[in-house]
Amino acid sequence: MRKSLPIFITSLILSYFPNVACAESSNLNQKVAIDLSQKALQSDLAYKITESLTVEVGPRLAGSPENAVAVAWAEAKLTSLGFDKVYKEPVVVPVWQRGEASAKVISPYPQNLVLTALGGSVATPKEGLTAKIARFDTLDALKHASKKNVAGKIVFIDQKTERFKTGAGYGKSVAGRVNGAIEAAKLGAVAIVIRSIGTDHDRLAHTGMMHYDDKVAKIPAAALSNPDADLLNAMLTRTDDVTLQLTLTPKSQGTTATYNVIGEFTGASKPDEIVLLGAHLDSWDEGTGAIDDASGVAIVTAAAKLIGELPQRPARTIRVVLFAAEEIGMIGGKAYVERHKDEMAKHYIAAESDFGADRIYRADLKVAASVFNEAQALLTSLTAIGVELGDNNARGGSEVSLLPAQGVPVASLRQNGQDYFDYHHTPNDTLDKVDPAALAQNVAVYAQFAYLMAQSELVLRPLK
Amino acid sequence: MRKSLPIFITSLILSYFPNVACAESSNLNQKVAIDLSQKALQSDLAYKITESLTVEVGPRLAGSPENAVAVAWAEAKLTSLGFDKVYKEPVVVPVWQRGEASAKVISPYPQNLVLTALGGSVATPKEGLTAKIARFDTLDALKHASKKNVAGKIVFIDQKTERFKTGAGYGKSVAGRVNGAIEAAKLGAVAIVIRSIGTDHDRLAHTGMMHYDDKVAKIPAAALSNPDADLLNAMLTRTDDVTLQLTLTPKSQGTTATYNVIGEFTGASKPDEIVLLGAHLDSWDEGTGAIDDASGVAIVTAAAKLIGELPQRPARTIRVVLFAAEEIGMIGGKAYVERHKDEMAKHYIAAESDFGADRIYRADLKVAASVFNEAQALLTSLTAIGVELGDNNARGGSEVSLLPAQGVPVASLRQNGQDYFDYHHTPNDTLDKVDPAALAQNVAVYAQFAYLMAQSELVLRPLK
Ligand SMILES: [Zn+2]
Ligand SMILES: [Zn+2]
Repeated sequence: MRKSLPIFITSLILSYFPNVACAESSNLNQKVAIDLSQKALQSDLAYKITESLTVEVGPRLAGSPENAVAVAWAEAKLTSLGFDKVYKEPVVVPVWQRGEASAKVISPYPQNLVLTALGGSVATPKEGLTAKIARFDTLDALKHASKKNVAGKIVFIDQKTERFKTGAGYGKSVAGRVNGAIEAAKLGAVAIVIRSIGTDHDRLAHTGMMHYDDKVAKIPAAALSNPDADLLNAMLTRTDDVTLQLTLTPKSQGTTATYNVIGEFTGASKPDEIVLLGAHLDSWDEGTGAIDDASGVAIVTAAAKLIGELPQRPARTIRVVLFAAEEIGMIGGKAYVERHKDEMAKHYIAAESDFGADRIYRADLKVAASVFNEAQALLTSLTAIGVELGDNNARGGSEVSLLPAQGVPVASLRQNGQDYFDYHHTPNDTLDKVDPAALAQNVAVYAQFAYLMAQSELVLRPLK
Repeated sequence: MRKSLPIFITSLILSYFPNVACAESSNLNQKVAIDLSQKALQSDLAYKITESLTVEVGPRLAGSPENAVAVAWAEAKLTSLGFDKVYKEPVVVPVWQRGEASAKVISPYPQNLVLTALGGSVATPKEGLTAKIARFDTLDALKHASKKNVAGKIVFIDQKTERFKTGAGYGKSVAGRVNGAIEAAKLGAVAIVIRSIGTDHDRLAHTGMMHYDDKVAKIPAAALSNPDADLLNAMLTRTDDVTLQLTLTPKSQGTTATYNVIGEFTGASKPDEIVLLGAHLDSWDEGTGAIDDASGVAIVTAAAKLIGELPQRPARTIRVVLFAAEEIGMIGGKAYVERHKDEMAKHYIAAESDFGADRIYRADLKVAASVFNEAQALLTSLTAIGVELGDNNARGGSEVSLLPAQGVPVASLRQNGQDYFDYHHTPNDTLDKVDPAALAQNVAVYAQFAYLMAQSELVLRPLK
């Protein structure tokens, strides 16, 4: 055993050799991080939080009465977990109600199809609308179509979503959902149905946000389940002449207030500097929002809670932000950036959990290039729980992706998304899809990340 | 090479040594059977038939207008495939329409649950009914409950269905669906909801037939999806006091006629003796009835068609019976037995395909014990395509299970049922669940079985 030097000598040495101090505190930080990781892996706190939100609140579409229940739940949960500060910040959101969705092939082979309205869609006439189908492989193919092939018809975009660990298939197909109604309306279509942006074969449709352009007619938009898209396709291989009756009854009803809910463990020595951990509190309305994003809420909350249980707070403040209204356009994220504009310089780094509940396999950063290697080295302990250290091109994900433009460094703690788009935005987003062990691994990663960043001596800026 | 004897000598030998003739024809039958098997494995006919029925007809609940379309489809399909005879026989069935099903937990945690009416259920009052939940692990536990714990409540039977290759889990749990409403009503319950009889975790409920007893009040009956049963359970672990609002709007509307549709290839030398291959034409109304039982229809039809394409017909008639109204109580099967009572002695053997579209792994028989070994030996060629030869305790499955009581020998050509109850009786029973290669293996088995039995010299009776 090495004998300790008297304190004044230690201080003397440290003042002459700052790197030694750095190495010592770094070793201590590593020790605490590994300890946090072990606690996280043995804890069921995140699973219990996920269960609590899905069972006691359930679906919580931004702007709905259920979303107000979720806000109250979040405040109560953060408070009961002993966060130093719990507060909420108002966010104005549009109110949209799904209503009913039904579709029936009228000819050549009458049968019902399963579909759901896309978020923000207008309604059909009350009695529905009936028109022939004009099918396209992709949004791009639709863009190149001629008016005479589309006018008066219901456009059907039939692009399949491929399965990838990274979830990259979603990026390839989602434009049809987001912009399909605009492009179809430009060519005179009366409505649009898309093949669900999902990798499953369940007879459950995937909803999600869509956009209108005020210069173009607003037409009803819905997603068919994958088996129903197959069915429509099989009919279209038999004849070009398929007629669909479509009824959607969504309603848009002005705006209302909801809230970003925030919980903090205050930093010991740099309380005004922030390590931000984000997730979103809202969900779509047909599942219980278990993997999107109760699991994210649970992961970042449990990670912060573990840090809050340490004998002493880390240097910086750990701020958990449970964002409002991610699903309907990152409205809570934008409101956060606006409200905290003057505080952006104090955001040391940020990360968000919004990609389901499967394990994290890779950590990417976006920090000053000059410190990337050192910053990455701080996270070495993550490799012990299956996390590869990646590159310096992180975008941060969901709301946190808004922060690099504000100069804020971010991390992407990437989850395996292999199965995510089987359930995403469907009624099937329920608690049974969450593996408690995988969830605990996420908490172990976030807890280590947050603690190590809250203690880091590095200057992570500027990003360019 | 062995030289052929002049024909008259051969005839002479055969008349003195009938076993030699038997062995020779047996070898020839084996050769034809193996040839049929190879053709079947290379054919996509069964897949095309399955696709045709699911796409061009879709759901076809017995007694519905869609079922009439299915009957017309079946007649046209058998005719176009060149069956020697195609005919139909009327069957009277009750008319039941599903209507809508909705449920909402009122307290303690308001949220909607996904469920579906059980087949034959009465409706709730139009405005729904609201009552507390009384949960039971099993139907048996309900039977032992006291009136004071059940009266005025909605009974919830929460039995999980286990996954087995044989499908044996269904047999263990299905009594709750069939008889739950009777037992619950005896104790004064106002309605019953059961955990779906299914092995999946999809937010899709499994319907299926239920019974009433005319001496007991008829109460509404529905099935919750597995994730919804989990959800209700999670609430019940927090409080005994869970109140549900339930609305079901099914309607029973008298009776109507539908049909057993029958196609035959007439036997060459024993045309009045029948090898019966069965499947059922009707389906539940929320999926397209792909694995239950379009695949069965396709398997037996394609198998018969392959035999019909041989240069000469086998000795006995191959009769394909596409039964009406299996799902709502084997009504078509009972009508067949009644109508063909005098012909029962002429049914050489029967088998039915009604367990999905996965591969056949085992063949059991029910024949006279004295000929079991020889009968089983006839089927040796099945082992080459993954079929184990089983025992003499076959029951025959679905409609065909009615035949042993009439003295008719049967076979059970057992399919792997591992995944069957993931989709059974749900909207998820769609074409994408059918593997064309597995379907072709089924055809190969049925074609060999039917041909070998149509040629067999054995006397398979009496059964005892
Ligand atoms: Zn999300
Ligand atoms: Zn069936």
